[in-house]
Amino acid sequence: MASRILAIDIGGTKVLMGLLDERGRVHSRRQEPVAPERDAAACLEQIARMGMSLLDEAGVRPTELLGVAAAAPGPIDFAQGVVPATPNLNWSGLALRRELSAIFGRDVWLDNDANLAAWGEYCFAAPEGCRDMIYITVSTGIGGALIIDGALYRGVSGGAGELGHMVMIPDGPPCGCGGHGCLEAVASGTALSRELAARLAAGGAQHISALAPAGQTPGPPEIAAAARNGDPEALALLQPVTRYLGAAIAGLVNVFNPQLITIGGGIGLNMADLLLPAIRHAVSRHCFSLHQNHLHIRTTSLGSDIVLKGAAAAILRARA
Amino acid sequence: MASRILAIDIGGTKVLMGLLDERGRVHSRRQEPVAPERDAAACLEQIARMGMSLLDEAGVRPTELLGVAAAAPGPIDFAQGVVPATPNLNWSGLALRRELSAIFGRDVWLDNDANLAAWGEYCFAAPEGCRDMIYITVSTGIGGALIIDGALYRGVSGGAGELGHMVMIPDGPPCGCGGHGCLEAVASGTALSRELAARLAAGGAQHISALAPAGQTPGPPEIAAAARNGDPEALALLQPVTRYLGAAIAGLVNVFNPQLITIGGGIGLNMADLLLPAIRHAVSRHCFSLHQNHLHIRTTSLGSDIVLKGAAAAILRARA
Repeated sequence: MASRILAIDIGGTKVLMGLLDERGRVHSRRQEPVAPERDAAACLEQIARMGMSLLDEAGVRPTELLGVAAAAPGPIDFAQGVVPATPNLNWSGLALRRELSAIFGRDVWLDNDANLAAWGEYCFAAPEGCRDMIYITVSTGIGGALIIDGALYRGVSGGAGELGHMVMIPDGPPCGCGGHGCLEAVASGTALSRELAARLAAGGAQHISALAPAGQTPGPPEIAAAARNGDPEALALLQPVTRYLGAAIAGLVNVFNPQLITIGGGIGLNMADLLLPAIRHAVSRHCFSLHQNHLHIRTTSLGSDIVLKGAAAAILRARA
Repeated sequence: MASRILAIDIGGTKVLMGLLDERGRVHSRRQEPVAPERDAAACLEQIARMGMSLLDEAGVRPTELLGVAAAAPGPIDFAQGVVPATPNLNWSGLALRRELSAIFGRDVWLDNDANLAAWGEYCFAAPEGCRDMIYITVSTGIGGALIIDGALYRGVSGGAGELGHMVMIPDGPPCGCGGHGCLEAVASGTALSRELAARLAAGGAQHISALAPAGQTPGPPEIAAAARNGDPEALALLQPVTRYLGAAIAGLVNVFNPQLITIGGGIGLNMADLLLPAIRHAVSRHCFSLHQNHLHIRTTSLGSDIVLKGAAAAILRARA
């Protein structure tokens, strides 16, 4: 039995778990939805059940693993292994690293999900010689991480990289973080769904809702499909997303002068055809040529496994 | 004769030059205005004349100096010593390091002015143990620099730290950089003067213009004085400055999680009483508590000599 790493990706809407090998390949996985209103105890119980089932099926005991790494959304006190507050889950002050270590009977590497995704991209997909990279994930929320001089940049208290909480409209819509007008509040999947719901409630967006499977609430996938058909309401719904995502990324390019910007997340990957041209246009419009000359902007090639792969990379780096 | 460093601070509106010792103390200085429309040749001639006069007066030959360091505004190709394009001076593709080296007959350290200011603050004024710092200068334009893990962060092509070109209003007023709605276009001294001129042209801002010395065009100092008297027009003129400076800095705190934000520049220092409370309010409103817990926001104690001191610090570090 080859050595395995257990990787746990706790998102705003799902828990994804995988067993990976030393080369970052995923050998088996589990995914379940997590309701945003679930409390920490229920979520920990779910993680324990999913993890043990995955290990049992593979015939691996927790002590035989190369390591266990977990990703959680929102800012994390990395040094303490604590989730102080999470916009998209009802957790506050949760000692998640200690809780997970108790579940699996061994030390667990706990990090912000975007940090691990960025680390996965950097270790498994970044071009040779790249040292400075920004990762931005657009899904339920918007997160990000900075790789500076080949290392994850954490900041003074481990919270760096909260790109979704750049302030785009100082008195804009309220954000899950408690602030207002954050990028996440205007350009995330949550923002898209909120605006779509408002149009549906006003009797609009009929071409969008017609695309939803019977009995399902239309959401970002239907907006994207309608936008590809040229539906004006769908394009209007996407306008703030492309506008503020483009502005935020252009500003980051001027501030960071990175070599690579990688975009991931459900919205980022599934709407790449709609988002990337707008982002590239914003960069060409707002950024110094000095900053554009060495810049690549692309989506991750690691798909939805990016956090799992980053978790494996963190374990492998810690053991190296 | 003690060892001296020649430091040259080329700004959007003035050239400041000083002779400093190994402890960063300024022993003599020259300052002259530079008209923004002046071309590179005229500016180089001015620098040569001012520098030689300063050296003659002190009885120091260029070869006896510990070093020469110069700061220029806007993004600089640090590796090549070239100013590719400068929003606030009519230069483009100027090989400034080579030109200055020819003038003084020796190698010259050339850097972005905000980079050197940040380095001066970090070396001479930052609290013990501080490793991650953001410097932001608010004057004619808005510049900045990032100190990451105790070193200047330059990015892949040397242009990092252009905080004035974060995009605050994607379709906002045109900026000197060629973009639109940059922080500099809405919150700099230039933006304040532009908006004041518009009000004066419309017959308003009489309480502000009454404060200007006879025969002088009122500008940011008169706006500040009127605002301190509670003048509604002055407060309205300052509103976008505090609004977007606060939003930009709050976003940077969430992205960088720094320990220290230092504010400098003519506007930053002379209007600190008007700006700092608004910036602190924006940070408390928009930033995660994790990010606020270890954060200090203040103006530099190095005053208008900050770039000269940073230039000296760069020479001393390069010789160490």
